[in-house]
This record gives sequence, structure tokens and C-alpha cells, in this order.
Amino acid sequence: MKNILGSNLTLTLFGESHGEAIGAVIDGISPGIKVDRNEIDRMLTLRRPAGLISTQRKEQDEYSIVSGVFEGRTTGTPICIIIQNSSQHSKDYSKTRSLARPGHADYAAYCKYHGYEDYRGGGHFSGRITAAIVAAGAIIISALKAKGIEIGSHILRLADICDRDFGNYSDDIKYLSDKTFPVLSKEAAERMNARILKAREECDSVGGILETVITGLPAGLGEPWFESVESKISQAMFAVGGVKGIEFGKGFGMADICGSEANDPFRAENDKIITTTNNNGGINGGITNGMPIIFRLAVKPTPSIYKKQETIDIFKKENADIEIEGRHDPCIVHRARIVVDSLAAFTCADMLIGRYGTDYFTPEE
Amino acid sequence: MKNILGSNLTLTLFGESHGEAIGAVIDGISPGIKVDRNEIDRMLTLRRPAGLISTQRKEQDEYSIVSGVFEGRTTGTPICIIIQNSSQHSKDYSKTRSLARPGHADYAAYCKYHGYEDYRGGGHFSGRITAAIVAAGAIIISALKAKGIEIGSHILRLADICDRDFGNYSDDIKYLSDKTFPVLSKEAAERMNARILKAREECDSVGGILETVITGLPAGLGEPWFESVESKISQAMFAVGGVKGIEFGKGFGMADICGSEANDPFRAENDKIITTTNNNGGINGGITNGMPIIFRLAVKPTPSIYKKQETIDIFKKENADIEIEGRHDPCIVHRARIVVDSLAAFTCADMLIGRYGTDYFTPEE
Amino acid sequence: MKNILGSNLTLTLFGESHGEAIGAVIDGISPGIKVDRNEIDRMLTLRRPAGLISTQRKEQDEYSIVSGVFEGRTTGTPICIIIQNSSQHSKDYSKTRSLARPGHADYAAYCKYHGYEDYRGGGHFSGRITAAIVAAGAIIISALKAKGIEIGSHILRLADICDRDFGNYSDDIKYLSDKTFPVLSKEAAERMNARILKAREECDSVGGILETVITGLPAGLGEPWFESVESKISQAMFAVGGVKGIEFGKGFGMADICGSEANDPFRAENDKIITTTNNNGGINGGITNGMPIIFRLAVKPTPSIYKKQETIDIFKKENADIEIEGRHDPCIVHRARIVVDSLAAFTCADMLIGRYGTDYFTPEE
Amino acid sequence: MKNILGSNLTLTLFGESHGEAIGAVIDGISPGIKVDRNEIDRMLTLRRPAGLISTQRKEQDEYSIVSGVFEGRTTGTPICIIIQNSSQHSKDYSKTRSLARPGHADYAAYCKYHGYEDYRGGGHFSGRITAAIVAAGAIIISALKAKGIEIGSHILRLADICDRDFGNYSDDIKYLSDKTFPVLSKEAAERMNARILKAREECDSVGGILETVITGLPAGLGEPWFESVESKISQAMFAVGGVKGIEFGKGFGMADICGSEANDPFRAENDKIITTTNNNGGINGGITNGMPIIFRLAVKPTPSIYKKQETIDIFKKENADIEIEGRHDPCIVHRARIVVDSLAAFTCADMLIGRYGTDYFTPEE
Repeated sequence: MKNILGSNLTLTLFGESHGEAIGAVIDGISPGIKVDRNEIDRMLTLRRPAGLISTQRKEQDEYSIVSGVFEGRTTGTPICIIIQNSSQHSKDYSKTRSLARPGHADYAAYCKYHGYEDYRGGGHFSGRITAAIVAAGAIIISALKAKGIEIGSHILRLADICDRDFGNYSDDIKYLSDKTFPVLSKEAAERMNARILKAREECDSVGGILETVITGLPAGLGEPWFESVESKISQAMFAVGGVKGIEFGKGFGMADICGSEANDPFRAENDKIITTTNNNGGINGGITNGMPIIFRLAVKPTPSIYKKQETIDIFKKENADIEIEGRHDPCIVHRARIVVDSLAAFTCADMLIGRYGTDYFTPEE
Repeated sequence: MKNILGSNLTLTLFGESHGEAIGAVIDGISPGIKVDRNEIDRMLTLRRPAGLISTQRKEQDEYSIVSGVFEGRTTGTPICIIIQNSSQHSKDYSKTRSLARPGHADYAAYCKYHGYEDYRGGGHFSGRITAAIVAAGAIIISALKAKGIEIGSHILRLADICDRDFGNYSDDIKYLSDKTFPVLSKEAAERMNARILKAREECDSVGGILETVITGLPAGLGEPWFESVESKISQAMFAVGGVKGIEFGKGFGMADICGSEANDPFRAENDKIITTTNNNGGINGGITNGMPIIFRLAVKPTPSIYKKQETIDIFKKENADIEIEGRHDPCIVHRARIVVDSLAAFTCADMLIGRYGTDYFTPEE
Repeated sequence: MKNILGSNLTLTLFGESHGEAIGAVIDGISPGIKVDRNEIDRMLTLRRPAGLISTQRKEQDEYSIVSGVFEGRTTGTPICIIIQNSSQHSKDYSKTRSLARPGHADYAAYCKYHGYEDYRGGGHFSGRITAAIVAAGAIIISALKAKGIEIGSHILRLADICDRDFGNYSDDIKYLSDKTFPVLSKEAAERMNARILKAREECDSVGGILETVITGLPAGLGEPWFESVESKISQAMFAVGGVKGIEFGKGFGMADICGSEANDPFRAENDKIITTTNNNGGINGGITNGMPIIFRLAVKPTPSIYKKQETIDIFKKENADIEIEGRHDPCIVHRARIVVDSLAAFTCADMLIGRYGTDYFTPEE
Repeated sequence: MKNILGSNLTLTLFGESHGEAIGAVIDGISPGIKVDRNEIDRMLTLRRPAGLISTQRKEQDEYSIVSGVFEGRTTGTPICIIIQNSSQHSKDYSKTRSLARPGHADYAAYCKYHGYEDYRGGGHFSGRITAAIVAAGAIIISALKAKGIEIGSHILRLADICDRDFGNYSDDIKYLSDKTFPVLSKEAAERMNARILKAREECDSVGGILETVITGLPAGLGEPWFESVESKISQAMFAVGGVKGIEFGKGFGMADICGSEANDPFRAENDKIITTTNNNGGINGGITNGMPIIFRLAVKPTPSIYKKQETIDIFKKENADIEIEGRHDPCIVHRARIVVDSLAAFTCADMLIGRYGTDYFTPEE
């Protein structure tokens, strides 16, 4: 199963940056879920480049849902979403066809596909494909909301600038929901923006750390061993090109504390079982414990930079220099956010449908 | 597919800590691979508790390969490895049955299995199951070696004590191969040992960071998106109970550098394509680029500690205190190492068989 | 994995009869395969209704390949084929919405999807979806041919009229390749046509038996037990709505003979191993033995007939009569043929890629 | 996924006829199901050879459930069942190692595994492995019964002798439940027995047709296309070595009737929806319609016969004669029956858990 995520609910991706269209197929979804085009638009907007901190490429993201939705609701059969490609500058790429862009998949793809790959603009590896993830994710995120499950992410760190920590999850998720630059502290947001613009001026790029929270999941989801919640979420997240690390709860900070601190004490509170700390990020032994899921992702600086770089000519196997042209993002951390939310939503829905059956999201009458 | 790892080569786990036996089934393996019992013994020894820094529970790990191996070689049909459980102190657990051990899966498992789970010693969640992973992994690791692919891990950090970085991978992997405490610097190893003993005296535990390298993989393995090399490795690694984070190459450090530094320049060197840095950990766009794969894992402090802890009674939904008895590890980082190597081996072999076919490891005649 | 066929090579279907479009995603295909639009057109023509023996609905089957093909060849990334729906008479269906058509999925789908299904024209259950299977299949069939693997099917029996048996497979496959009514004996073909027209006049429908041969497959494909060649082919074939039986080789005739007759004797012939009979249809123990694969499918009479039928009102749970309007096929055996060939091709390619790796179909240079 | 059946509930098989042990792993089962050893014994007895109509090999089938069952109930974690091999006459096989037994997998397996396969007694292809399927199936069959779902099979035809058709399903299933020779008509049973003994005397073997019914399944199970109920059942059934055909409902007889007869009229009867005929075998469009599932399997004559046969020497690629020694069944139709029931049970349980969630079989309190 190559381009397919999930086991009960599956997401299949297709498309290349400069091909005719990109898209996704969602299969295994409960029938009867309301498909809210406003929600899809809201989420696509959050992914779309905006302002000088993003690429100047205009992406209209005009999508059609060609199957699986009838009279505004999911039918239970596969949903195919198609997004036409329109704003392509294919000539930007052709002259550097033979030069492997450092930090990109060009060379690895060549080794894998023997030169038959559509190399234009990264082809199937392009971040462009994430538009399909987001459009598809919007349907799932709506369905989760109706079940009281919410997902939100902010830029915890961009280069050396930190956002404040999550406070009240519900309020913060709401606050983030319409921000194209998802930072909780306004002051930090401004400094981060400035930092990206500086990178842009320097023909360079910057990375950062995203932090995501999922609230409202019942305890008992996930499996021991290979389908642990961490296994499933991390598999999904590493689909995103620039993600190079993930940690749950205290994560790498676990090395700094003892077991007596790392163990989250259980408490009974108003008929609910909670933990008083959440170092394990809502997951014990791979299974949800009812606390919010917390994870953080390391997102690398965009590899497309305008500075001259050393590389090779793929065909001649010779050293060469490359100067990338075209329109590129000096930072993708903020745009990656809604992709992360979408993939998190898929993973949650996949586990919920697996556990509670295919009608889990179907409205009761 | 719950307890099953892989798509072309699969690993199925079964067993509970205090049940009759644990084990694993390997399916999809190439026929003709030599099964070296010395290698299995070597690896099981590295997982087995040794000295005061580990649990005092004696695990003999007597295994039988009941299928799939004939005249010392793999047949190509499923290999089942059975490891009997012998040294069980079930009574240690029964009296605290109703108390959820903090940091453990007890409560989450109860929510999932409604109380039918075998709670003794963590049941199916027990680290004991990893013995089956290691025995199975030894067969795969031998097969990889014959193809020039090597895997090694060291404790990069234990609590606040750091090992030196990897130097010459081949030498370091060799050095680590017979160390039950896998640290490259002898001085660091001693200090780490002392730190674990201190934790033991304090009835507490410590965690750390493992660093793993895989050398010799061809470029072009992995898939864009959901079966990226990072997706597959992370899915496997988060099967290990205590792992709470993973990063590839520069990982979370990517937030500290610019694109011009993060991008690994390609160079042609003696008919080989290399990168002069390896910030991407041998993976571009989810695909191997021929450089060594590098990743690091955050391993949390063992949750089983002797200090009194706050928790709940699962059945009464009331607050309670727990004092864990029995024999436990004050640290599992060193023992987790060979499990990590085994799972890395599986993931590599799964990708190789997928790419090159089922006879990839079959000796040519 | 619901609407997904295959493990190494996957085919994902989407679409409803009266929705915006139908289509398919092929994933896991070797890079470099020539995509021949003439072959796609040839095969789509064979599926398209023609003459009075088929529905009078005109289907243009205008398809676009929106991804995965670049400069006329497969890239190795997912191929998405979209076929727009154009000739829809949705009003034909709405007035009988509440009446379950006997022999159709209407009632079963209602139980599964709780009324949210797109009921128009059978929705996702419609034979219309097979156009996507055929378009996708054409790419695979071309790739198989280049490897010397050929597939052909004829109507062995229609109602009580029998075709002659396969003679020289290669000649017969060639003969069938451009016949919209795939019968080897011209005389039988005429009688079958007349039989269908008679059914049409009687407002009724007829079924039959298709026989398929696959030549050129190497010995050693398939797996013991659950991925036997029979398991894989039958899983694919029962995707076709009207198929109610499958048999391999002698099939149900096996009950009529003794082991001494059923066993196909092996012989060495000109450096090749053959069997002198082929009662096992080219498969022993689930694995190909190098002889042609032979199977037969029972295809039921089209359930859409104009005669008045007894049924129920789904919503009222009351008895009712139904008179189906619209345009329907009095027989689909001939049109099902190329769908069968396409699915057989997928199954073969899936097994070949699994066994020999992802580059199996990539041209050598 | 090679030796693995199912998607929500999985069955993994391992073992060779003359290896140390055979067995199965069941994963994904609901927690809390009572494991009744009497039921396992009953079913293993029905598979065990009995009398002169079966092999004289004595198989004790001593099994252990080494995991996944605690205090007599399923825990929800993987159940591993191990059956030791004891009565092996390996020398019977070694001298004919190089001779491919006609109708057996020997030659095909050699092509697949390159001679590394365990050839003794058919190795992993041996019918012996079905003991593991039956032991595992017994647990599932008990669970289904508790939900009102029953499965039964009889020998509809053996050579040219026919049993009577099913009458009252419930009574007939009960009648068959303790018969080692599952035939409804006593008179037919006697004649069939005599026919098998005659085949035995002639050093030959006979085949037949099994008919299976599944009652009590809810409407709405299965998926359109590739996970149709027919797809799933047929995939499972063709795992059984000797099965060469399957048909649902009227099956191949569909070619003999018109649509007006083939369509099963729906009727509302006492608040239930039924069909007045069941030509579609309880399945419309791949989905259950609430009527009993009916299918028939063609089982070929046992390929191990004592008559001299023509074959090849695998290594020399030369013609040769073979005279099979050892102890073999002149007929396996009756013994295959309970394997069929077991696999049908798995398929049903897999679909039910997929549809209703992992707790479907968990007893409510």
C-alpha cells in the first residue's frame, strides 16, 4: 500500500505539481456526514500561500468532489476530490532538469524511477499535493467536531523564536482556527514574520517546530505494538516532506527527568479519570488514556532557496552548481500546519471507525 | 492489521508476559537465508537483563523455531519462533491488580479490553515480548549483513550524560556488537552506569536517547507520502513501549539552521554520489539517497519504580496510592537498543523485498 | 481496504453512475511503461454498449489521465483516470427510489448506508464503474503483453447455447481481441445474439458463462493458503456485480473424475516442463505451474428487466410491485468480458511485481 | 500479506507437515469471548481422519493456546495456537524427493522457493496445516453462535452420488454438527462411503461438492467491488488446497435461467424483509441482504494416489515415473468440511468486527 494511509478509513493521494490535476480518494467513511464547503474553503485558505512570507505562486485550489457525496452528505462510498492544476510555470524547471536540488527528492526519485518521473516542480513529491490532503481533511475534521473531538496546531518555535505554550486548549484551538499564521502570542507572531522576511531577503529559508493537540478522544484507542497511536500518527506525519522529527508529550525531554516525574499520576475527578500531568501526551503503551494527545513536529527549512548551491548533474554524474529559480516559500511551517491537522484527523477517524464500526460518524436519528 | 508490521515482509507478535509463551511469525522472507543460531543467541544476550542496572528477573529466552526453517535455512514460508515463559512471579502482580500503574498501559488497556486483558506483568504490553522481536530480528540482520547492510545503535545520552558521536560507522557498529551496554566512550559508559545505579538506589528510573545508523542501503527505497522511509521506521520504532520521540538526521535541530545549511550538497566522488553533510539522515522526500540513515529515539524512564505513587483504583474509580513490587529495570535504554536494531532491520528488509522482489535475500548459485 | 484491489499493485475505484465522474487510481506500477491510448480506446469500445443486445444508453467514456503518466509513459507514481459522466437520465430512477429492484443491491445498500447512498442508477454499485477498471486495465494489459503474457475470454455459454472450446490460445486471443461479442464460433455467436434479442423482446434477460485463459505466466507465482492464485483471481472477479461462480481448470467437473484422471502428469518437453492435461488450470497448491491459467465465471442474467416484479418499499417496509423503466442491457455477459480481462491483468501484475520487484515492467535499456 | 487472512480480524498460518509444529495466530478478536475447549475438540475430531475412508496416519492434534486467552476468555490480544507434529514418517518422502507428485504443489513450490522448501509431506502446503485453521475457527464459531449466526456444510455430491438438499437449515446444521461424514441422507452417506472404499481399493481417489449455509447474518455486510461478500468468502475458500470452484446461490445454474427467475423477489413478512427465493445466495451487489448465505465448493480428488503416474524429476528435468507411498486419504471432501466452516466463520467475523467495531463479540454486562 504505497500512497495509501489508514486501514479502516483510507486516504489515497495522486497527482503531480505540474500535471493536469492532483487529488485524493477517501474510502471507508461513515455515511451521512455533512460535507461543509465552507469548512473546506476555510482550511484550503489556511494552506494557501499568503503575503511575502510565502511563495508568490497563486494557487486557486478549485476542487470538485466527483464522487461519494450526495445531497450534501457522504454516501459511505469513496469520495474523490480533484483539484485542477492551473498556475504552472513549467519552463522554470526544465532548464535545471538534470541538476538535483539539494534537500529535495530529485536525486532519490531518479534512483527510484529511473528518470521516468515527472520532475517538474517536484512532481508527485511536491507540497502541492497537500492541498488534496487538506480538502479531504476538512470533511473529517467536521465529522470529528460533531463528536466533540478537536485538533489544533501552532508554531511553537520558528528559528529561535518561541511561541507561548498552549493554555486552555479549546480557546487556543478556536483562536488558531482562522489564523493563516498560527501563533498564540501576537508578539511572537510578529517576530517570526520578520524572521521569515529576513530569510527571504537572504535568499535563504527557515524551519521550526509545530505543536499539535487533539482533545476529546476516548480512552482505549490504538493497539499495542505496531498500531500504537504514536505509530499511526508518526506514519501519517512523516508523509509531509519537511517533517524530520516527532515527539509525544515530554518527548526528547524524557531524557532529562526521572521516572517519578515522567509518570503521570492518575486521579479520579468528577467521575472522570484524568492524569495530573501529561508527560506521556495522552498515550500509555500505545493506547489513548483519555487525556489530550500532544505531539510536536520538527519542520526543516524549505529546501528551495535562491542561493547558489553545490550539487551534481544526475545524468553526467558530475559535480555542478545550481541556482534555483521560480517562486518558492522561505518558510512552510505555517502552511504545513493545516496539513498536519488534516492528517491527525484522518488518523483519529481511522482508529475510531476501527474501534466503533463504520457507522461511528453517521448521525443518529 | 493490528499486531502486524510490514507489507512485503511481515512480523506478527503474540504473547503475554505471564502467559505460556511469547513469539513471532515472520512471513514473506526470501528462501535460502542461513539461520545462524549464534547470531540469535548473541542478540538475545544483548537484550537480556545483566547486572544491577537491569531487573533481577532471570529470563532464559529458550526459543524454538517451529516452522519455516529447514536444514538450517529459511524455506520462504512463515517462520514461527516460540519463547516459553518460565520465570514468572504472578503473585507479585495480583494484589495490585486494581491499581493502574502510572506511566503504564494498565488503565488504557482496561478501557480497551474491558477488564478481560491479562493484567499480569503488563500482559501483551510487556517488554518481555521484545525477546521475540529480537530473535526474529537476528535472522533478518544476518541476511542484511550478507548484502552489505549494517545497523548499529548507541546510547547517545542517558539522563544528562552524553556519549561521543558516531565516528567511523563500520568500526563503531563492530565495537557495539557485543556490548550489553552500548556506549562508544568508555568513560561515558561508566558514568551512565553509575547514574542508573543511583536511580536504582533512589527507587527511581532514568531515560535517554538512542542513536541508530543504517549503512549500505541503496538509493531509491521508500515511497513518497505514506510509506516514506521515515514513516516506516517511525511506525516500527513507536511499537517499543518507552519510545516517545524520533528524529532523522538533524531532526529537531532543523529549527536552528537555515535552508542553506540544512540542504546537504550532492557530490560525485569516485563514481558514487554522496552528500557532504547528512542533515537529512539519508532520506530526501521520503526516499533513501544512498547515504547512511541516521535517527535518534527518545526513551522514557522505566515507568515501574518503587517509590509510592498516586493513582486510581480502576474498578472503584477512586483515588489510591500504589507501591509497585516485583523486579524492575531502573533503565531500559540499553536493553531497548537491540530491539531497535531488529525493528530497523525488518523495515529495511520489507522495503528491499518490496523493491527487488521476494528472492532478494536468496543466495545466488 | 474497501474499494482497493491488490497489495503490491493497487487499484482504487470511485464514482457513482449518476455522479459527476467515475474513475480509478492505480498505485505501485513500474515506471517507464508506455501508455497506449489506442489500447485504452480499443478496450473501452469492447465494454461499451453496442447494438440492440445492449442498453441504448450512450456512454462516451471520455477519460483523462490526470496523473502518473508523463511524456507517454508511467512515472511510477499513482495514475488517476477520470471518466466524466454525461448521459444520465436521473429522473428515470427517482420515482422508483423507494422500491428495491430485485436482484440489485438497492435493499442491501440501504441497510448498509442507511439511506445516504446515491441510489440513482445503482450509484457506486453500477456497472458503469467498470469503465474505469477497463481504462486502467488497458495500461496493465499492454505491459503484460510486452512480457509475453496474454489474456483472453470468450462466452463459453449463453443461456443454453455453447461456444466451441479454446483451441490454439494465441490465435483465439487474437481473434477475440476486436470482437464486441466475444465468441469463437460464428454460428454460436449468431444464435447467442438471437437469444439475447428474444430475451429483450420478452422484457427479460439472460446470463451465461465466460471462459478466460492467461498464457505466459512464469511458474512459482502465488502463495500457499490465503494468497493462492485462485484466491487472488476469485477475489478480483467477484467484484463484478453479476458474477456468481468461478471455477479453475476442471472446476466443478472435478467431482466427476478420479484422482488418476484429475492429476495432470508432468512431462519434460524441449527444455520446458509442461503437464499433458490441464485439469488444475495451471495452478497447483495455489502456485502457478507454468501452464496456462484457465477459469470460468458464471454471470447471472442482468437484474434490470422490464417485467413487473414483486418487491418491497424500503421505507414503508411494505410489499409493492415494481416496473423498471430506463435503458437496460438484456445481457451483460459480452460486455463483462473485458472487465474480466482487466481484473485478471491486475491480479497477474500484482503478483509479478510482488515477486520480481517494482521495476518488473520497466523497460531495460 | 501472504499467509494472512482478513483485515479487521486476521488469521496467520505457519508450519510444515513434518516440522516441529504448526499453528495459527488470530489477531483483532473481541475481548471476553468464552473459549470452549469442548468446541475445539469437537471440531478437531471432525477434521481428524477416521476409518478406512481416510488416511491411516494418526494425528493427535494436541494443541496449546499459548497466548491471548486468560481465565478462559479471549483477552483481545493475539491468540496463538500451537499444534505439535508427532506422527511423522519422514522417510516415506525422502526417496521420492526429486519426483514432483502430479496434482501437488511440489513442482510449483520448487519454482517458487528454489529448492529450499521443506518438501516432506507437502511441507507448508500440507492439509495438516488445516488443523490450525480448525482449532482457531472453533473459537470464532462459538462467538458467532452466541450472536445467532450458524454455519453448516454437507457433502452435496461425492463422485456421482448426491445428498438431499438442505431442508430446515437449523435442524440440518444441528444434525451435521457431530457427523464425521457430513451427509444429510443416511442412504446417500452409505453409498458415498462405499464409493470412497472402492476408490481406495483401486489405489485411486474421489472428489465432490460441499454445500455451505450461513444463517443469521445481518443485512448490510460486505463492500461493493473488491471486498464483496463473495470476494471475501472465495478468497478464504481457495486457501484450501483441493478447492477448484465456488458458486453462490444458483451459481453456474444462472446460465440456465432468465432474469425474471433469477431475481429474488423481496417481501415484507412479519416485520422482516425476506426474499421468496434465494438464487443470489443471500448476497446482492456484494452485500448481504439478510437471507442465508449459500455457497458450494468443488473439491478435487486427493492427488496422493497409489497408482503409478507419469511425472518429472525436478532436478534432472527428465521424465520419470512415480509411485507414491505413505498413508493417504482416498477422499478429503468430508474432512475439508470443518475447515470450510472455520474459514467461513473467520470471514463473517472479520466483516462483523469491521462493521460494528472491535467489541462486537464482547459480552454485555
